[in-house]
Amino acid sequence: MAPPIDRLLVRYRIEADAAHIEARAAALALEQSVEMPAAAITDAGIRATVPGRVERVAALPDGSFEVDISLAASTVGDEPGQLLNMLFGNCSLQADVRLLDARLPASLLAALPGPAFGIAGLRAACGAGPRPLSCTALKPQGMAPAALAELAGRFARAGIDIIKDDHGIAQQAIAPFEERVPAIQRAVDAANKATGGRTIYAPNVAGGPGRLVAQMRVARDAGVGALLACPMILGAPVFAELLRAEAGVPLIAHPALAGTAIAPALLLGRLFRAFGADATIFPNHGGRFGYSRATCEAIATAAREPLGELLPAMPVPAGGMRIDRVDEMLALFGRDTMLLIGGNLLEAGDGLDARAAAFATRVREAGGEAGRIRP
Amino acid sequence: MAPPIDRLLVRYRIEADAAHIEARAAALALEQSVEMPAAAITDAGIRATVPGRVERVAALPDGSFEVDISLAASTVGDEPGQLLNMLFGNCSLQADVRLLDARLPASLLAALPGPAFGIAGLRAACGAGPRPLSCTALKPQGMAPAALAELAGRFARAGIDIIKDDHGIAQQAIAPFEERVPAIQRAVDAANKATGGRTIYAPNVAGGPGRLVAQMRVARDAGVGALLACPMILGAPVFAELLRAEAGVPLIAHPALAGTAIAPALLLGRLFRAFGADATIFPNHGGRFGYSRATCEAIATAAREPLGELLPAMPVPAGGMRIDRVDEMLALFGRDTMLLIGGNLLEAGDGLDARAAAFATRVREAGGEAGRIRP
Repeated sequence: MAPPIDRLLVRYRIEADAAHIEARAAALALEQSVEMPAAAITDAGIRATVPGRVERVAALPDGSFEVDISLAASTVGDEPGQLLNMLFGNCSLQADVRLLDARLPASLLAALPGPAFGIAGLRAACGAGPRPLSCTALKPQGMAPAALAELAGRFARAGIDIIKDDHGIAQQAIAPFEERVPAIQRAVDAANKATGGRTIYAPNVAGGPGRLVAQMRVARDAGVGALLACPMILGAPVFAELLRAEAGVPLIAHPALAGTAIAPALLLGRLFRAFGADATIFPNHGGRFGYSRATCEAIATAAREPLGELLPAMPVPAGGMRIDRVDEMLALFGRDTMLLIGGNLLEAGDGLDARAAAFATRVREAGGEAGRIRP
Repeated sequence: MAPPIDRLLVRYRIEADAAHIEARAAALALEQSVEMPAAAITDAGIRATVPGRVERVAALPDGSFEVDISLAASTVGDEPGQLLNMLFGNCSLQADVRLLDARLPASLLAALPGPAFGIAGLRAACGAGPRPLSCTALKPQGMAPAALAELAGRFARAGIDIIKDDHGIAQQAIAPFEERVPAIQRAVDAANKATGGRTIYAPNVAGGPGRLVAQMRVARDAGVGALLACPMILGAPVFAELLRAEAGVPLIAHPALAGTAIAPALLLGRLFRAFGADATIFPNHGGRFGYSRATCEAIATAAREPLGELLPAMPVPAGGMRIDRVDEMLALFGRDTMLLIGGNLLEAGDGLDARAAAFATRVREAGGEAGRIRP
């Protein structure tokens, strides 16, 4: 007997009426695999194993349907781009389909890189023990390197663990990467020297592969402690192949351009982690974005739960968070979490240093409160 | 007087009620630029020029709103990734926002590569005069190189202008790129020699930059006439920087993972063209996808209309097309069009060769019918 064919199980939500859901599900299974009528496949071996198969159709309370389709793992190959293509390439163009979940087979998990550092490595990079981390962002766009460096120095003196570029700071004429990154890192180094702290800086790398390689060289020479990148803008294959292999420091993934049609727990949690993110930023509930609390918990779970041999990634709730929510966020997400607060620190104006220090201190001290936050 | 600040004009559709639309639009303008409250920006020069500005709010018949926001061109820099980030990075995560349109300033258009070959160059690559082109796809996934080559030879003998890989054919163990591409190209070469035709083959390049470079080397050595690629999977920066510079042959863009939240005319038409696509595949109306006829016409217009100094790109209606629609499609899209029909040729079974030849001939001869199809 032939060995069982390794298959991915993929869950979609389809809006269709009950009379048409079986046909719609069957069409989706072909769309996401052979992209042709099964009857027109002349090779019997291919016809038996390669087309997607509808494994389950279940009505949801809102009148839509949850549809499980299995895909031959052999069609996915071994890289993130083709995985995304098989999961959601063509049907991303169809308004009636959402991608809810995907169970990745062991063979595929073994081929994907996963985090190089993971939660423990990210903590180690900023000299932290088993406690939550604090993170803030340099913004707004339009600041010159000296101003960005001055702001970074203040955040570092306040004791914030990780200072990242705003993801909107890219290769702009006002602050070219090769000028701003060394300047900011020097300011962080000076602050660390003054305080004895271990703040790290994560510049945003952006552009095509040639530019990314050049930026990583600048970042390495400057001695940055992490990198920020947007996998859906750069391309997941670039993130997983080039950045994961060449960064040499933890990678913080930003969700820009990640859209709403793929369940955030799958994309920002499981897949970004599988592609090599050591930390994954997501919009927390109750901020400027519409994610529910349950969605946010699911992202954190997907980033941290057992997944083949892959290290866990640090969930980073963000998106309009305020320091008055620190306790509540830590209670929800627990110790293996990095809190990212940007604008709310800048809003303090003259009180920026004090508010940043209060944020950093509160997060740092939460590590000792074993009884208050979840391990 | 300072020179006027170069700004991009971006149009969004927002679902909001009338009482909240002004505030929602203002929040979106900040989200897509400085990502912080404007009042918290301490630098007056930045506050005056860098935040997005709401330029217009207009109610739409369906109760939603059309909102025009201008963004400082200086924040976009000079590359596709940061352009996508500014247009739709964060707000792609917000379910109430769609990106409808964007007017790119001359400075940005000058920085983006555009097609290297354009419509005329694509025609020249397959030795065609001023007529529409025919295109088909090698499928299904799961075929070995010899079977793919045999099928390609049949399509080439039928006289089809361009034979592309199905975009689902990537780096799979059954047909590795370095085995299938030379085999397929040899079959196409042999057919061309037998018929005196000029059919070209466009393999699908996929993966991270290292793999793409290796694949382009194999493709070049084999003598392929074009390349197929999925910009939203590979990453627009990789497509525009690496493929556009290194391909040496026309690039055919595939819309996989392009989603539904960015207007297709903008993304598949104008932006893919600006990023370097010589041809852009899109799902035609009345096929397996939900695009309207008006949407498809808008894509074709965006691909071909004047756009800075950029060459026009060839629109490629596809997605479940049938040969009985050839005349209707040519009447709609005109001469500067490539028709892509895949599954409907394969469905012919034993009649594949005849149906493929009928398709190729019908499209080829349409070039002489100046009165029947639009110029």
